[in-house]
Amino acid sequence: MSQDLNPVIWPMSARRVNGEITIGYISVSDLADEFETPAFILDELDFKARASLWAKALQEAFGTNAGTAYYAAKSFISTQVARWIEQAGLGLDVCTDGELAVAIAANFPAKKIELHGNNKSESEIAAAIDYGVGVIVIDSLQEIDRVARIAHEKSVTQGVLLRLNPGVDADTHEAISTGHEDVKFGFSIASGAAWDAILSVKKHDSLELRGLHAHIGSQIFTPDSFELSASRLISVLAKYRDEFGAELAELDLGGGYAIAYIEGDKPIPAQEILSVIATRVKSECEKVRLKIPRISIEPGRVIVGPSMVTIYRVGTTKEVTLEDGSTRWYVSVDGGMSDNIRPALYEAQYSISLANRSSSAPLRKSRVVGKHCETGDIIIRDVQLPSDITPGDLLAVPATGAYGRSMASNYNHMARPPVICVLNGRARSIIRRETHRDLLALEIEEEPRQIGKGEAK
Amino acid sequence: MSQDLNPVIWPMSARRVNGEITIGYISVSDLADEFETPAFILDELDFKARASLWAKALQEAFGTNAGTAYYAAKSFISTQVARWIEQAGLGLDVCTDGELAVAIAANFPAKKIELHGNNKSESEIAAAIDYGVGVIVIDSLQEIDRVARIAHEKSVTQGVLLRLNPGVDADTHEAISTGHEDVKFGFSIASGAAWDAILSVKKHDSLELRGLHAHIGSQIFTPDSFELSASRLISVLAKYRDEFGAELAELDLGGGYAIAYIEGDKPIPAQEILSVIATRVKSECEKVRLKIPRISIEPGRVIVGPSMVTIYRVGTTKEVTLEDGSTRWYVSVDGGMSDNIRPALYEAQYSISLANRSSSAPLRKSRVVGKHCETGDIIIRDVQLPSDITPGDLLAVPATGAYGRSMASNYNHMARPPVICVLNGRARSIIRRETHRDLLALEIEEEPRQIGKGEAK
Repeated sequence: MSQDLNPVIWPMSARRVNGEITIGYISVSDLADEFETPAFILDELDFKARASLWAKALQEAFGTNAGTAYYAAKSFISTQVARWIEQAGLGLDVCTDGELAVAIAANFPAKKIELHGNNKSESEIAAAIDYGVGVIVIDSLQEIDRVARIAHEKSVTQGVLLRLNPGVDADTHEAISTGHEDVKFGFSIASGAAWDAILSVKKHDSLELRGLHAHIGSQIFTPDSFELSASRLISVLAKYRDEFGAELAELDLGGGYAIAYIEGDKPIPAQEILSVIATRVKSECEKVRLKIPRISIEPGRVIVGPSMVTIYRVGTTKEVTLEDGSTRWYVSVDGGMSDNIRPALYEAQYSISLANRSSSAPLRKSRVVGKHCETGDIIIRDVQLPSDITPGDLLAVPATGAYGRSMASNYNHMARPPVICVLNGRARSIIRRETHRDLLALEIEEEPRQIGKGEAK
Repeated sequence: MSQDLNPVIWPMSARRVNGEITIGYISVSDLADEFETPAFILDELDFKARASLWAKALQEAFGTNAGTAYYAAKSFISTQVARWIEQAGLGLDVCTDGELAVAIAANFPAKKIELHGNNKSESEIAAAIDYGVGVIVIDSLQEIDRVARIAHEKSVTQGVLLRLNPGVDADTHEAISTGHEDVKFGFSIASGAAWDAILSVKKHDSLELRGLHAHIGSQIFTPDSFELSASRLISVLAKYRDEFGAELAELDLGGGYAIAYIEGDKPIPAQEILSVIATRVKSECEKVRLKIPRISIEPGRVIVGPSMVTIYRVGTTKEVTLEDGSTRWYVSVDGGMSDNIRPALYEAQYSISLANRSSSAPLRKSRVVGKHCETGDIIIRDVQLPSDITPGDLLAVPATGAYGRSMASNYNHMARPPVICVLNGRARSIIRRETHRDLLALEIEEEPRQIGKGEAK
């Protein structure tokens, strides 16, 4: 087990001391005793380091053409995290008024906020303009008119980007990229919708078209899709210049940078992937004699993902005999699909380690499951675990920072776990554990009242 | 559109009046004006009728051998719903202390509560015994000792069932049922684990083995899997009688009864499916000369599923040109995978109707999507909708009562929708809409504190 904490997967401070995993120089047993389980443990310095790393890598790759590294709030956000993001020099990408509310609670600088979404409500748009967000990324023709009207009513000239669909299927190589047009997001370049949107934006005095945006997917391990997307966006910038005799200043290439969840996952380091993309951006701009625009990116998972570890306590174990006569060891923990829906939702794979002690017991074919009343409530489908794992042991699942707590539910009326921030032997909750009282607080008793015109019989 | 509200899919009071859908004799427009969108609309009489129907159908099918129809709280529970369940004469199946907390808040009769779960914590077991739940359904050997010990400490003789795995794959016919052993739940009959568990329970004075339980799956449209499961459980009852010279009194056949989500779904009515199962139970018992045990069931989805309709408001529409040159109409609504994860999680299909008006516009190939920043945030993948649907229109999705609100998340910091109970022209929230304040309330600021032995450097 000495090599079990692969540093590509685990947060930087994770290590084994006398057999036990420590994070932020606190043993998981002590964390479990203090905060109970399940819990998300956030390595504060790891988070801050990764945030800085991506901001700096953007600077290094693009120099004076570096725009903003917008942290994707959807991966995980809290007011504390928003403040760290600001301190690290990043911007914030929010998708809803809920995420905006966190930014506002953190006093996040409005100009460094970008509002996304395929279906922003009028009140979301109004709230964003009132707060003064730097840029709204527009996603549909209707939204162009909507943002223009609301900005006009508020006598604001709103900076906007247009979200384009570059027709890049991020899972394939450039050569066989047949496009990925059938999605709800953006204006297709290929169909001409993108150009129509540009013409439409130009009609509105209350909108200032700053540039173009694309986001091509998630967990992308190679730069080629980013490069292809950038080159297609640059061709639109060139057409714009040809048509209007002026250049758009900004290009936001979105996020989707992969992290390592399991052995063998090899994400490309920030500097390396951004430098490859920068080279391509420069060559494409040269080709069409365009000034290099300011380049922004939207890292989310790649910052927060590896910074958190979920710790669970084992409750029961069970040997199950399979059809072929072999056996599988089922290890049940005290969380599950309510705190990590990704295995059930995307067949996502995770690593797991016995955390409170090391073991030299023989390994055994195991499956780690949650406590929900659902067969699909599986955390790790297939893993070799020490055969002496027993109720009371702690298991740690790394790389759960992104889309873990942020997609958590109260399925089976389970209280959502806290997020515990650890740093140099000290710890604190930044999101507390939910209680049954919290869940019951949404129940209200009110008198039935007559609604509307009274179609009642 | 006159036939669009198929009564097999929609709640009983749903109808169109002057083109507009009304539920509980209130138009969806009035409901949306009063409670905003998205919202779950719960047809109170529909829920109560279905609850009574299943309780009565169990009585009719099994007569004096009818046990309890336990409502599966995981599908959807609130204190109000728990009180309706009690009034309709059903019991309550809870899986966690969170669900138990709702039952306790509703003063639900303890003897009619059944505690489930593959990994009940000690505190959950203790809470259940303290409240006096009628039966604990035991799922693992470790749990036998655990429940026995806690009951002993409390000087209680606790009624228990053993959850068995009858090796029935609910998707296949009896003939080709090769078993479905590779799951976390239950003791396998085939492997001998079930018998070992029986012997283990018998050793404990603090446990009273009342009988056996099995639950074979979800959305099951035919009785054959239930019949096969029952017959395998009865063979264990017979072996028990042969071995111990006494008969176990109870058999809980679980839930999993299908409902209709889309046209063509043909669930078997309660009376019919339970009568088929009853016939098989009787014949199997006769075969092995066993007294017919008390038969319990666990309907959840089949009661609450059809009783709720989700109403959404359209925010944007967009034409997307596909690879083959055809177009798809994307209709974006103000909810999505946070209020209904089932399409993304299980590729579940739903129906949808334009709700605030009727339309004679030509139909158009459409996809209804949510507002989350995720391509998979799809509510209805493929549907023909009137081509004049426009922002502001209301859409209604029926049959969202089960595993809708109960699995809802705050993904993208979206507030979860309320559950609005409608009855004869009157309405009230039984679960209120969440607010951003609720979400922020879980954030806390505390001083970092030294944890544990201070391994810090």
